[in-house]
Amino acid sequence: MVRPAHGGNLSWAAGLVGCSPAAILDFSASINPLGTPRSAIDAIQAHLPLLRDYPDPNYQQVRSMLAQIHQLSPDWILPGNGSAELLTWACWDLAEFDQTVLFTPAFGDYFRALNAFSAKVQRVSIGSNLQGSKSTGLLLNNPHNPTGKLFDRAWILEQLNQFGLVVVDEAFMDFLPPDQEQSLISEVQNYPNLVILRSLTKFYALPGLRFGYAIAHPNRLKLWQQRRDPWSVNTLAAAAAEAVLQDHEFQKQTFAWLNLARPQLFEGLKAIPGLSPLPGAANYFLVQSECSVPQLQKQLLEHDKILIRDCLSFAELGDRYFRVAVRLTSENQRLIDGLTSCLLTTIS
Amino acid sequence: MVRPAHGGNLSWAAGLVGCSPAAILDFSASINPLGTPRSAIDAIQAHLPLLRDYPDPNYQQVRSMLAQIHQLSPDWILPGNGSAELLTWACWDLAEFDQTVLFTPAFGDYFRALNAFSAKVQRVSIGSNLQGSKSTGLLLNNPHNPTGKLFDRAWILEQLNQFGLVVVDEAFMDFLPPDQEQSLISEVQNYPNLVILRSLTKFYALPGLRFGYAIAHPNRLKLWQQRRDPWSVNTLAAAAAEAVLQDHEFQKQTFAWLNLARPQLFEGLKAIPGLSPLPGAANYFLVQSECSVPQLQKQLLEHDKILIRDCLSFAELGDRYFRVAVRLTSENQRLIDGLTSCLLTTIS
Repeated sequence: MVRPAHGGNLSWAAGLVGCSPAAILDFSASINPLGTPRSAIDAIQAHLPLLRDYPDPNYQQVRSMLAQIHQLSPDWILPGNGSAELLTWACWDLAEFDQTVLFTPAFGDYFRALNAFSAKVQRVSIGSNLQGSKSTGLLLNNPHNPTGKLFDRAWILEQLNQFGLVVVDEAFMDFLPPDQEQSLISEVQNYPNLVILRSLTKFYALPGLRFGYAIAHPNRLKLWQQRRDPWSVNTLAAAAAEAVLQDHEFQKQTFAWLNLARPQLFEGLKAIPGLSPLPGAANYFLVQSECSVPQLQKQLLEHDKILIRDCLSFAELGDRYFRVAVRLTSENQRLIDGLTSCLLTTIS
Repeated sequence: MVRPAHGGNLSWAAGLVGCSPAAILDFSASINPLGTPRSAIDAIQAHLPLLRDYPDPNYQQVRSMLAQIHQLSPDWILPGNGSAELLTWACWDLAEFDQTVLFTPAFGDYFRALNAFSAKVQRVSIGSNLQGSKSTGLLLNNPHNPTGKLFDRAWILEQLNQFGLVVVDEAFMDFLPPDQEQSLISEVQNYPNLVILRSLTKFYALPGLRFGYAIAHPNRLKLWQQRRDPWSVNTLAAAAAEAVLQDHEFQKQTFAWLNLARPQLFEGLKAIPGLSPLPGAANYFLVQSECSVPQLQKQLLEHDKILIRDCLSFAELGDRYFRVAVRLTSENQRLIDGLTSCLLTTIS
């Protein structure tokens, strides 16, 4: 089987080891390990009788709820079939500019969506100073994937004044506590050249259901709606979204877990000789390794049924980096133990 | 609220009457009235624990099953987020031709998808002779919507020899018994310029879940996969698709219902003074009315909570046509009685 270019491809890993995908402990996709909230499952069950009807093409209910949460009017919000669908339409808009600046290493799906519309991409190493212009677009994720770097709101506002269009993918922003988050949502009404992409996939552990949303000027979102089909969000995803957005208990539990598990994993990784995790703001860490990662990945899979995300698909990172999600403390410990033992074997 | 341009917009109708959408008897969307099969619901329930994982981006399982059913190799099949999503990519391909021929009246979403990619559309009245060329595309549905007309396979093969690209939307083809169907699937390997779109929405009463598939040359489908995001089909839709495709009992029940209900509705409509249903091959009928349809539609909603599909969105049909789905015989009778009584009121 072909090595996957994205995390979370459990069928690939399971095929490699010869076990069921469920038997793999997956650190490659950065999904909340508390799992899908009960509130989502209950909402899905309750809406099964509605599958025989088309979804409301305006998705009024879930838009209104998101609007209330973000203190915007509903026409500033467009739900999508995962934020990946909305990225496609955002990249169509970016393709109208002379070029699009992209920090590297960059999430692979950005290249897919930009290439789809023949956008000209200018790769810039993350951390470099940017030279913007009104004929140039900027595609950014905040926190950045895979490094976990968090860009300041003030710094992005500077870019908004320079670039013709700025698309900020905030897929992991809801893992940051309110006093640290740097979301641009509160600024969107001041910048018609700003598009924000959000996802429920990661925080609410729903990658299989597909729900994301864009926040941008209503004229832009109306245009996107004319490009795509009228029912891009399935009924169950819209219902689950409404439910989890009100699930404050799950949100509290998530922060309670993350506040312990994040430092535990970071310190645990740092203590392993040959590994250096980069400090990051999200629910994952990029880790530099002194030994070859594909080999390490294979060993971990075979010995411990643990899947880490190699970074071969990031041209700038090569075979000496991997990414791991923060999982439950007991699972993090299994990873730390597994890595320690694999690296001892490799060295000896 | 804005009058919907598509059938099945129950929230619009419910808002108009002031009742819940569930209280409306919906003849406007042509969905199997037996409802979502139990096998689909069971498969969805069984797959809820998998929502925390990304779907397999290759959708191997459901592709293999479809491949087996259609006696093709899996790379000739691409699942989509409803056939409406796949229509978008098909229209991108059509937009590369000088123009696309479209029979009118035409399904409204065809214009959306063609306009999205600035395709030049040449409208031709249904039934006219076509003048094809290699620089021209053809977008067709078979059976045709809204007229129900069935094109012969042989006639479409002639078009395939003339036109540069032929996209055949077979969304309603599975309502035809094997001895009458005119699907092009058995011919697809002979025509790299053929795209077939299929849907599970109508036959399996799953419009809320979103599952359709395209059948075309593997190179074309690979290109489409590079345009769209990797996880466009949600896990529950893929699981339900696998289940219903094996649900032969539901398929049998559907034909048992349709064989009775179709002639019943047709004859019932024909017997109402002022109405003339067109003979059609699908699970719906286009009906010509001597009196204004929007008024009739409103009366039926208010008196009987019955929703019929007006045809105002079809420029060529205007206000003297409506479309109704074939429903259960008792429901068809309610429609026939409601129409009869409304028309008596209008005339008297």
